[in-house]
Order: sequence, then C-alpha cells, then structure tokens
Amino acid sequence: MTILTASTTNEASVRPVLRLGLLGVGNVGQGVIDVLTRNGGEIERRAGQAIRVVAASRRNVAALKALADAGVRTTDDPGAVVRDPEVDVVVELIGGTTLAKQLVLEAISLGKHVVTANKALLAEHGTEIFAAAQKAGVIVAFEAAVAGGIPIIKALREGLTANHIEWVAGIINGTTNFILSEMRDKGLDFDTVLKEAQRLGYAEADPTFDIEGVDAAHKLALISAIAFGVPVQFHKAHVQGITGLASEDIRYAEQLGYRIKLLGITKRVANGIELRVHPTLVPTKRLIANVEGAMNAVVVHGDAVGTTLYYGKGAGGEATASAVIADVVDVARATGNAAAQRVPALAFQPDAMSDAPILPVQQVVSCYYLRLRVSDKAGVLADLTSLLAKQGISIDAMLQREAQDVGGASTAQTDLIILTHEVEEGLLEKALADIQNLASVLAPVVRIRKEELA
Amino acid sequence: MTILTASTTNEASVRPVLRLGLLGVGNVGQGVIDVLTRNGGEIERRAGQAIRVVAASRRNVAALKALADAGVRTTDDPGAVVRDPEVDVVVELIGGTTLAKQLVLEAISLGKHVVTANKALLAEHGTEIFAAAQKAGVIVAFEAAVAGGIPIIKALREGLTANHIEWVAGIINGTTNFILSEMRDKGLDFDTVLKEAQRLGYAEADPTFDIEGVDAAHKLALISAIAFGVPVQFHKAHVQGITGLASEDIRYAEQLGYRIKLLGITKRVANGIELRVHPTLVPTKRLIANVEGAMNAVVVHGDAVGTTLYYGKGAGGEATASAVIADVVDVARATGNAAAQRVPALAFQPDAMSDAPILPVQQVVSCYYLRLRVSDKAGVLADLTSLLAKQGISIDAMLQREAQDVGGASTAQTDLIILTHEVEEGLLEKALADIQNLASVLAPVVRIRKEELA
Repeated sequence: MTILTASTTNEASVRPVLRLGLLGVGNVGQGVIDVLTRNGGEIERRAGQAIRVVAASRRNVAALKALADAGVRTTDDPGAVVRDPEVDVVVELIGGTTLAKQLVLEAISLGKHVVTANKALLAEHGTEIFAAAQKAGVIVAFEAAVAGGIPIIKALREGLTANHIEWVAGIINGTTNFILSEMRDKGLDFDTVLKEAQRLGYAEADPTFDIEGVDAAHKLALISAIAFGVPVQFHKAHVQGITGLASEDIRYAEQLGYRIKLLGITKRVANGIELRVHPTLVPTKRLIANVEGAMNAVVVHGDAVGTTLYYGKGAGGEATASAVIADVVDVARATGNAAAQRVPALAFQPDAMSDAPILPVQQVVSCYYLRLRVSDKAGVLADLTSLLAKQGISIDAMLQREAQDVGGASTAQTDLIILTHEVEEGLLEKALADIQNLASVLAPVVRIRKEELA
Repeated sequence: MTILTASTTNEASVRPVLRLGLLGVGNVGQGVIDVLTRNGGEIERRAGQAIRVVAASRRNVAALKALADAGVRTTDDPGAVVRDPEVDVVVELIGGTTLAKQLVLEAISLGKHVVTANKALLAEHGTEIFAAAQKAGVIVAFEAAVAGGIPIIKALREGLTANHIEWVAGIINGTTNFILSEMRDKGLDFDTVLKEAQRLGYAEADPTFDIEGVDAAHKLALISAIAFGVPVQFHKAHVQGITGLASEDIRYAEQLGYRIKLLGITKRVANGIELRVHPTLVPTKRLIANVEGAMNAVVVHGDAVGTTLYYGKGAGGEATASAVIADVVDVARATGNAAAQRVPALAFQPDAMSDAPILPVQQVVSCYYLRLRVSDKAGVLADLTSLLAKQGISIDAMLQREAQDVGGASTAQTDLIILTHEVEEGLLEKALADIQNLASVLAPVVRIRKEELA
C-alpha cells in the first residue's frame, strides 16, 4: 500500500510533533506505547501531527529500560514528567485520588493538557479539576475513564448534542457483567463465580470496588454530568452491588422474560436527576440484556434520536489505550490545525490518503450458504462434494430438508443446504458452474455469503 | 430547574449566533426546525453559540408560511439561500446529485460551511466536493448521511483514531432490515412484506434504491473511505439487494444458527479493500443479528479496541435532524471557540451548567421484582396484596415456585415472585416493612429493580 503524500515527503517530515509524558506504565500505559508504536504512522495521517512519548514515569523505573533505550526520558518521579518542559500533554495513568490529583492540577497550572483514565479522580474531584482546566485554558480529556474503548463520552458530548437526553443506562463494569453472565449461564452461585473470575483475571484480588458497584458509580457520575449539564456528584449516587444476588433470582427473572444486569442508570425527571447503580431486571429481548461476559454497553435515550446503544470492551490495556490516544488526537487536532482542517472530512489528512485498491468481488474471500434443489437419489452428494473439492472448497456444515412448494414435480426432490469454509468467490463460481450442469441439480443454486463477524 | 449562568444573563445574550440556511424543508428539514425550537436553549448551552435558522427554501414556498411568520427568509430558490450573506452554514437537504452538487459547490466557493444528509451526492461526487472544501478552508460535515442519528462517522473519524481498522460491517438500510425481520418473524415472502412496508411507510413507492442495496452501498462507500483513508469509491462496490431472497433460506439459516441480514461490509485485506453489500448469514448470538425492524447498527473492528457496535434509528425526521444539528454544533465549536473550550469537558459550557438536584433514592420511581419466601397456606397472598395496595402498589405479574434448598424446613414453603408496576421507592419500603412483619413471611424479602429501557 502506498501512502499518497503528494509532494509532501518534506511536508510530512516538518509536521509538528505532539509530545506525551506518561505517568504510570502499567497495563494501559504499555498499551498506549504498543499502539503508538504499531499504528503511529496511521495515527499521524489522521491527526496531522506525529504523536510521541518523550517521558515516562514508573515506581520501578528499571522496568522502563526498553523505553529508555528508545530515547524516552524515564524516571521514578511522576512530578519530573509533569514538569518536563518538552511534555505537551500529560497522560495520567497512575490511578488513585491523592497523588494523581496533585499531579493533574500541577500539569494544568503549567498550561499542559491532560488525558486521564482515572474515573475515581474525576468522580470525586472533577469539579475542582475541570474548573482549573477551564481557567488555565487547557483540555482535560477522559474518554478512557468510562467504558474503556467505547467512545461514549464523545457520543454524549458531541454526537448527541441536539438532544434533550432523557436517560442513560449502562453496563459499565466488566467484572460484574462477567460474574452475572456466568451465574446465569452455568447456574452457579456468586462466590463460586467470583473465584473463577479472579482466577481468569476478570476480577481483582480485592474485588470490592467492582462488585459493590463503586466503580460503576464513578463512571455513572461522569456520564450524568455530561448528559444533563450538572456537576459530577458521585457522593450523591445510590450504589448497590451484586454481592447479595442469589442464583435463584437470576433463574426466576429468566422465567419471567428478564435478565439481571448491574446497571448504572441516570435519568432526568420532573424534580431532578436520578443517579443509581443496582442490579436490574431488563427484558431479555433488549439488545443490552444480551451483552455477555466482560463486555460493556451504554444505552442513551434522547428526545430527537430515540434510543441508541454503544457496545465494546470496557477494559483491557489496548482497548483503554484506544480511548487515551483518541483523546490525544483530539488535543492534536484542536490545537494544531485550523478550524476547518481540525477533523478531516474523510478522517485522514487530505495529503495522507491511501491508494489501496478496492478488490473485484471475484477476489473476495468469504464463507457461503448454498441451497441446492436436487433429485433425491444416490450419488448426488458425491458428485457435488467432488466438484467443490476440485476448487479446494471444504464443507463446514450440511442440512438436508424435504423440498416444499414443488408444484407438480413428479420425481422425489430434496433441498440440500451446505455451509462452506472460506473460499475465494472466483473459485466458488467455477465450482457452481460445474454443479449447475449436473442433471441431478434441478434449479439454480442459491448462494448467500456468511460472515462470523467475530 | 435553574440554569446557572452566573453573572451571565448579559454574557449569554452577547454570545455569537451561528446562522443556518436550509435547502429543502421536508421531513428532515422540519425535524431540524422542530428540534432547534424545542431544544435550542440546551443546544446553545452545549455549543457556546445560539444556532438559528435564518433562511430556508422549498419548491412549495407557501408551505413555509409559519417559518416566514417567524422571521425566517423563505424562498423557492435554494440558490438565494446559498448566496444569502447572513447564512454562515448551508444545510443541504434537497437530495439528488445534480442541483445539490451545484449548490454545495457554490456554498463552498462562497466560504460557507456545509452540513448535508445526502449520501448519494457524497458517494458519487465526494472526492470533488471534499477537495473543494479543503481548498476553501470550510467544513463539509455529513454525519446524517450514514445511519441517521447514530454518531458512527464521529466514532470512526474521532473516537477510534488510534486503531488500525480491520473491518466494518453494518445494517445501514432500515427498509431492508424491516423487510428481513418481518419475513423471518412471520414466515412471509418478500413481495408480501414489501407491500406491508410500503403501507407502513418503511418503504417508498419506488423502493428500488433500498431493496437493491444501492442506498446501503452509498453509505458503505463513505464508511470505507473514513475507515481506511481511501477515496470514496461507490462505483467499485459490489452491490446485491434482497429481492431474490426466498423465505425458505431465512428458515434454513435459522435452523443452522444464523440470521440473514443485508450487510454493508468493508474489510482491509493484504492486497486491498473489500467493499460489498449483500444478504449475509450472521450467527444468531451476535448482537447485530438481533437488530430488528427498521433499526440500524454498525460493527467496527479495530486492532486496539477490538469489536465495538453502534445502534440506533437509521432514518426518520428527528433522528436524522439529531445528526444534522450535531454537525452544526461541531462547526460552532470548531469555529467559535478557543481550542481548549471547543468541546467543554462536561459537554455544557462551564457558565451554563444546571443545578437540577440529584434525587434521594426514596424518591426514585421504578418497577420491582420481589421474591418472598412464604408459608404455603391460604390467606398469605391476600395479606401481601392488601399491604401492597395500601401503598398504592399494583402488581404486573406473579410467579409461584416451590422453594429449593430449604435445609431442614419442617413446614411447606414456597417462593412467591411479584413484579410490581411503577412505585416510588419510599412507598415500597413502607409496604415491605409491613410485609416483613407477617408471620407467613419466612425470610427477608428480596427486591431488585426492573427497567423496561424502552
């Protein structure tokens, strides 16, 4: 693939660089480094600026040797990163609400933009932090603090600006959703599943924050503020976790047509705003009731748009890094470009488009559903499968059904349904041309593509 | 609710105004007017500018009398709106690719930003239009062109900027999804359901563009360009509609664990990009397979974030208007504010927050699931229901089950599950306090909230 940089080999090289300082290099910090390393070129083509980690701190600074070898200034003092004059954007990933607060406020006071994944910090001290940022004229961005990689903050804050938001309800804690999914799926009780979740890494050694609903309430307080234009008010949330949940209630709910999910719900009503986290029965037919395992989903109801839903991974190093870097790109675009070029119409900077070709459909690879109306006699299947095999097409599943609605047919007919494994369309066409010529194939072969979308 | 404008009754009134000119006032145009009228104050609190329609055109200009009476300049000549010196942003809603193209290019040449819902125009002439906008330094925004009110363009272009996008697959045509849902649900054939869809307004009198997949391909071409940084290449898409789909294939697919959806799929593979619209078997357990009726959903797979999904209404006046106005607010924020204040951290401008109170949980209204372990004897139910009725609590559904796991219980026990209608939590607590005192209630009552999320 060529990147079309039309007369811009030079231009590209003089593009400004946005310099990041990472506070904390754990799971998410490493994700940020890995994604920037892997996708840096593509991100620059979108952002219009290169994005580079120039400094990073970690208590165990020796663990940052690879970064140091790559020229990043490493230290065990996060304050040194904040004060590093070459750091434009401070990425706060150390968590907690004491040191993190102090570092974020210092970065703001130095006129630096801040990107953070720290929901506890913003839920408890958001009002103070956002006011300081507003005064200093810097951005504090926090997409990564809510629902990991799902761009739900952006959807609420920008995508749905036309709406009077009526309510938001979300599965915003993966640990509890994993536990509830397993309890239902396997009919196990809470304690057993919690132990399994800890073993698999879905729950922490001390799972209190997750299972008691506190983590969800942190995120919900941020969602509520953005949806309704109120201050962040975590301390006023009603918070109830899933520790008291009995497996028979999950079973009874199922019999009544409901699933139990730990939801964060915030709703605008006549006399104020509801802000609550608790186990909730949701009709099984709703999409959000079918969000399983550690996945997150948020439903937003606006008066103009109606119901919209946003689904994805709520945690994990790279999924969270996806949100952190998106915030960094927002900073790059907002501060580095003229208004009209801020977000390029086609996402990539016009001088950095790709010339990757659109493939002719004969080269497209997919699985297929084939339906053949055939004579119900010996040898038909052997003929078919050998013609498929001739083009290297293998069979994933097969189903035979008596053909219906065959008006006036005198011989016995049957419908043969075949699911193939992956095949290039051109080869399938060759095989089908041969198959169509068989005397035992009585009607045009029906073919429909199949995608696993996994 | 008071809007906190702290010393800003004056300040608010001197906020700049972004002035819109509407080309076309049909379903979507009327939606834009209605939503701006209803939510104008709230939108201004988010955008930092008032947004006002100052001019509008419609072939039947007499139908715009109400607008004219409200002081909007109305005309039957869309060119006059484009050239109106007081119009900052041209909102193109007339559709088609000839006159619309000419008007959009003229607006751009006059240095005006353009917001459009016209997928056909951008799919066919996007390259020319975006180049002109780039040269003129204006924004051409088109969230409303793809998947109606779902902010999928923003998610791809901004929310997922960190990712190497691997594929995108979407239900991006509501008409065909409605038809496929009905065919499956009711076992009807295509022609019958199409007629029903036309009667209900889900399909047009000439449904060709929808049912042949052309509309989906227009949208997919835009999605593909944004996901992969390639030009808009609608003419290279492989397009197959649902007209040939037999109801037995829907049935057979179901038996194999799949649903058939008309998907637009674009995928990055080693030698290029796939761009195709066709009926597709999708595993029933995938969320997108459960998107029913006229709803839309788009699945995006990125290397960092994994799979994310975006769901909502793909059409309709106000849902589409939601996207149009979001684009207008983006223009307002990008052009009217300093970089750091462009998108306020908490979505609303800091001087325009609300003081709506968070309600104490006793005032929260919801439905409840109650589980009561009771003695299995006459009169228990009467006692319970009368105590509920005393607080005005009515019953939606009831289920009786033999209690399990009752170690060493000597009397007959049963689990009684009650779903209540809506009740204020405080009243439920009173009722439960009384119920808990009944001798026939043998264990603490379990209560879990229930939300329909509809």
